[in-house]
Amino acid sequence: MKIAIDAMGGDNAPEAVVEGCLAAVREDAAPLVLVGVRPTLERELRRLGADPAELELIHADEVVGMDEPATTPLRRKRRSSLTVCAELVRDGRAQAMVTAGNTGAAMAAAMMIVGKIDGVDRPALAAVLPNRHGQTVLLDVGANVETKPAHLRQFAVMGHFFAREVLGRPAPRVGLLSVGEEEGKGTALTREVFKVLQQTGLNFIGNVEGHDVFNGEADVVVCDGFVGNVLLKGSEALASLLAERAGSEMVARLGDTEAVRNTSAALRRHNDFNEYGGAPLLGIRGGCFVTHGRSSAVGVQRTIRGAVEFCSAELHEKIRCQVAVMHEREQELLPKDEGGQV
Amino acid sequence: MKIAIDAMGGDNAPEAVVEGCLAAVREDAAPLVLVGVRPTLERELRRLGADPAELELIHADEVVGMDEPATTPLRRKRRSSLTVCAELVRDGRAQAMVTAGNTGAAMAAAMMIVGKIDGVDRPALAAVLPNRHGQTVLLDVGANVETKPAHLRQFAVMGHFFAREVLGRPAPRVGLLSVGEEEGKGTALTREVFKVLQQTGLNFIGNVEGHDVFNGEADVVVCDGFVGNVLLKGSEALASLLAERAGSEMVARLGDTEAVRNTSAALRRHNDFNEYGGAPLLGIRGGCFVTHGRSSAVGVQRTIRGAVEFCSAELHEKIRCQVAVMHEREQELLPKDEGGQV
Repeated sequence: MKIAIDAMGGDNAPEAVVEGCLAAVREDAAPLVLVGVRPTLERELRRLGADPAELELIHADEVVGMDEPATTPLRRKRRSSLTVCAELVRDGRAQAMVTAGNTGAAMAAAMMIVGKIDGVDRPALAAVLPNRHGQTVLLDVGANVETKPAHLRQFAVMGHFFAREVLGRPAPRVGLLSVGEEEGKGTALTREVFKVLQQTGLNFIGNVEGHDVFNGEADVVVCDGFVGNVLLKGSEALASLLAERAGSEMVARLGDTEAVRNTSAALRRHNDFNEYGGAPLLGIRGGCFVTHGRSSAVGVQRTIRGAVEFCSAELHEKIRCQVAVMHEREQELLPKDEGGQV
Repeated sequence: MKIAIDAMGGDNAPEAVVEGCLAAVREDAAPLVLVGVRPTLERELRRLGADPAELELIHADEVVGMDEPATTPLRRKRRSSLTVCAELVRDGRAQAMVTAGNTGAAMAAAMMIVGKIDGVDRPALAAVLPNRHGQTVLLDVGANVETKPAHLRQFAVMGHFFAREVLGRPAPRVGLLSVGEEEGKGTALTREVFKVLQQTGLNFIGNVEGHDVFNGEADVVVCDGFVGNVLLKGSEALASLLAERAGSEMVARLGDTEAVRNTSAALRRHNDFNEYGGAPLLGIRGGCFVTHGRSSAVGVQRTIRGAVEFCSAELHEKIRCQVAVMHEREQELLPKDEGGQV
């Protein structure tokens, strides 16, 4: 197994990325290959007290900027670290790629260079969020802003496997994000998707609401990328705001002691969703993890752990098989003229 | 001025509602009329050590349950406390109504009995959320799950007046909720609304993202009721979860002392969005505030304060005038065949 790291992508790259990689190699024995501007990476490793020979490096002399168009790694910068990472996965020289860089560009590189799993129309970006009893997989959180019922059904299948294989849930409860629990609640899209999800054979628990994402009622919550993105970004900002307020409240009530400051710092860390690790792009013929542009070394290390688990579970292979089975069943079930559509 | 209170609505009614009303009358000199089953209300007031004559009571012998259809106050239970509250506002005997009961039924009663402002097609439920520098008005949070650009424009106008008159922002910054800041980002709907909002003369700051709701970049954030509802409910649950976790973390690190327990309780209160007060339904010919079914007495009292401010600002009158002006301007600007549509 090999994980390709875009060492140049992200607001804190290459510093935080290289530091996270070094920790992953030393503490977790992660099998990494770092892709980026070799002299820069070597300098960074030396700065961290490491011998550059300790890590496998591949030179790529271009970098995709955070604000460049999503097509940059495909067109203008074909020698970028992001492009090279995707090519390594495509060619089987790596099983997953990890980047803290431009999300749109990463998704484009994964879809166009690595390629989609047969039968998956739209890969989905999944976020792993904390809930009262563990973690919830929310998807899609931004890969697709406008989706059809068949896409959401594929998201459900992919989320199911992610929750089962990576989060260790034996029979993941899959919920459909809506504005009321009853079947009739929601938009025309959610009402249609409700019916579609009932036919999947997944452990579909029906509609769930915004609060259910955090109260642990579902292991997987399926939604379109617009609402998922808003909920994810809103939650990240709210968690960060509340951690700051909790810190001020503690200092005001309990005094500005070292113990209070440490507790406050711990809360800020716990409320920093970046520290949970990056979002997997599911539906690709290999692993692709996009972590936050502002990720710290710890965030990068956690994302690498996620990528290793993903590859160990051979998740994309499981998704591929299930999607193929569903596709076949539909061809039988559906009226002939809709066979190719859903 | 008079505020009609549905004293029977909500999970904690009538206890918490009557207690909140008593505090509002005693501490804020709020001009209330409590509507409900008179003997029950009198007993509740006596239990709280009050003389029932201290508050104005109107008898209504039916109660709309939390799970009954939205049409209940209009059809099956025309003598419900909710129906009577709406009739008081319709008849000018009260300027606003407040309920902790069934949200759908409250909206239906407000729209059908009190009536919509001329030119407002869809009233919107607004939530006031905490942000880094103060508060953000998010609307719609659930009155409309499927909306057209003209509806979102009306939400923007109503949110503008609410932020200006009730939250005291002189020139409220109005943002459109989307998945990227650039004009082209989002769905077909948000792209169209972006153009519409540029023409309003409001202080439109363009697209905002989920995190901007909590970082204080906008005073008003406009969205359809589906995404707004998911974000509101998700945020409420997340805030509650994080307060609990902060409490455990504090006890573990700082010890289970009284000071720590008090700090933990304060955090839980601050993170309880119900305590911020209820959501106004904007676009009605009068005030209508819907507070959470689980509202405490403090939540009810805060909601009453909001209702008093709303009435003092004559908000629905200001919205009415602005909507009329916009409507007129559009009739001039638009091609003839679209005049009546947008």
